[in-house]
Amino acid sequence: MIKIGILGYGNLGKGVELAVKDNDDMELVAVFTRRDPKSVKTLRGTKVVSVNDIKEYEGKIDVLIICGGSATDLPVQTPEYAKIFNVIDSFDTHAKIFEHFGNVDKSAKETNHVALISCGWDPGAFSLNRLMAENFLPVGNTYTFWGTGVSQGHSDAIRRIEGVKNAIQYTVPVEEAMEKVRNGENPELTTREKHIRECYVVLEDGADAARIEKEIKTMPNYFDEYDTTVYFISEEELKKNHSKMPHGGFVIRSGKTGLNNETNQIIEYSLKLESNPEFTSSILVSYARAIHRLADKKDYGCKTVFDIAPALLTRYSKEDLLKHML
Amino acid sequence: MIKIGILGYGNLGKGVELAVKDNDDMELVAVFTRRDPKSVKTLRGTKVVSVNDIKEYEGKIDVLIICGGSATDLPVQTPEYAKIFNVIDSFDTHAKIFEHFGNVDKSAKETNHVALISCGWDPGAFSLNRLMAENFLPVGNTYTFWGTGVSQGHSDAIRRIEGVKNAIQYTVPVEEAMEKVRNGENPELTTREKHIRECYVVLEDGADAARIEKEIKTMPNYFDEYDTTVYFISEEELKKNHSKMPHGGFVIRSGKTGLNNETNQIIEYSLKLESNPEFTSSILVSYARAIHRLADKKDYGCKTVFDIAPALLTRYSKEDLLKHML
Repeated sequence: MIKIGILGYGNLGKGVELAVKDNDDMELVAVFTRRDPKSVKTLRGTKVVSVNDIKEYEGKIDVLIICGGSATDLPVQTPEYAKIFNVIDSFDTHAKIFEHFGNVDKSAKETNHVALISCGWDPGAFSLNRLMAENFLPVGNTYTFWGTGVSQGHSDAIRRIEGVKNAIQYTVPVEEAMEKVRNGENPELTTREKHIRECYVVLEDGADAARIEKEIKTMPNYFDEYDTTVYFISEEELKKNHSKMPHGGFVIRSGKTGLNNETNQIIEYSLKLESNPEFTSSILVSYARAIHRLADKKDYGCKTVFDIAPALLTRYSKEDLLKHML
Repeated sequence: MIKIGILGYGNLGKGVELAVKDNDDMELVAVFTRRDPKSVKTLRGTKVVSVNDIKEYEGKIDVLIICGGSATDLPVQTPEYAKIFNVIDSFDTHAKIFEHFGNVDKSAKETNHVALISCGWDPGAFSLNRLMAENFLPVGNTYTFWGTGVSQGHSDAIRRIEGVKNAIQYTVPVEEAMEKVRNGENPELTTREKHIRECYVVLEDGADAARIEKEIKTMPNYFDEYDTTVYFISEEELKKNHSKMPHGGFVIRSGKTGLNNETNQIIEYSLKLESNPEFTSSILVSYARAIHRLADKKDYGCKTVFDIAPALLTRYSKEDLLKHML
């Protein structure tokens, strides 16, 4: 059994707890939290331990899955805990991945551990598909569309506006743009042409709806470059119809082959997820198996999904892979 | 420069010749043929050499891409040439992959070469996606649909019927079945419910159309389990509208996550190819880079796409991968 630890018990940590039950070569050792352990009740009864006691688990956990946020948690936690455990994180600040990799690699190599950073679906499964599609079709263009799904960052930005009681924002890919790509038209698409933003907003009593709608639509970086629609709804409606965390998206490679590159070849990878955090967690857990195996081989240091051969993630035997999966 | 050789100059061999030009870290050394080399004119002027002289190229070729057929060529050629070169083939007789692997692995290991078998899109890219989707979502069902595309084997089977001058057969996936899968219904689908077969047939003068249509529709293994439509057309129409080799298909994983596996998560990978052989060739060539690198590392023996980390196929530097591709 591969012994898994979870650091942080938000949506992602909960998802990891659930995903481990679907991999019966794995067992959960503990959830580590910065909160008072007594205040945390886990979904499946996993033991909760204060993060202050985590060092006592050195040698008792094969892979620690770090479920903190990319803004402030992971840049500190992953290099720190890579000194004690094999670790996986879902660091998703694309612009800082290179720096984060260097920090984690140093910790892991100095202490003979294996680390995997930026695992999940984007970065993660989408990155894999972008890279493989470019490998297969070196001439062409790659397009990524996200949605329909909830953007936590954009929802938070709306909630910070004065007079907004609650809000949720959906990123929606533009179907016409995707069809152009699928038809091999290789369009140049602006930000506005690729995605639209739909906002469901609950107002405080007496708030000025017109002012709030304008503030949303003109918010720099978040909304000003998009076609944005704002719907005002009741708190009850928000709870009833908008409490899930769906997401998804599309990676499309529009490639060309042939004597004069006249042949259109389209590769498309898409996700339709009812729960974004549960899917991300499920990917993290599948890579825990690979990281455990790399540690067995003493292949220490920091890795990304690009470094992991698909066979390292599977429970199938070599014979089964050849007979049934190829 | 990675030096590539091509054995066999049919549609696949031609595709390899074209794909190499789109990978500027590679160069073609020669096409090897069983025919009289003088009778073979290559699309881009690549040198043609008799296969009888292939041993003279030992040490002059980094990877030999073997472009023969799976029925009789590859079971002999790949183990034989793995004794002289690093080799890649597209062996696609699923039931015999395990046996073929053993034969090629023995040759390659005994002579310190690297071999990759069953590379292309199915087996190949589709296999990768089936495996990764099962890794990510261990609870669920995987569905593969093929088409719309030309099946060479089924076209040949029609051409063998008495009175048939020429024919082409398209495999078409059933849209309703795919929609059920995409909706997370996890249907049990019969052969008939997944694909239909469309046949375009040119008759010999005076042939009995009704008898031929019946022979096609009742042909065991090829057509009897499918809903088949037969269209009789002229030789001119066949040449004009049916001379290309399009193909494609869909791998869909309908998975479940959550406390009681109540959450639907759909992963879909699809291909829309104007030229099946050109795409297959393009994948073979991308894996040649990986095989060359494994040979440099002295990681000898037979591999499949499952054994190859994505980073091994790319021309991007590690820094570029971290900064731009994750």
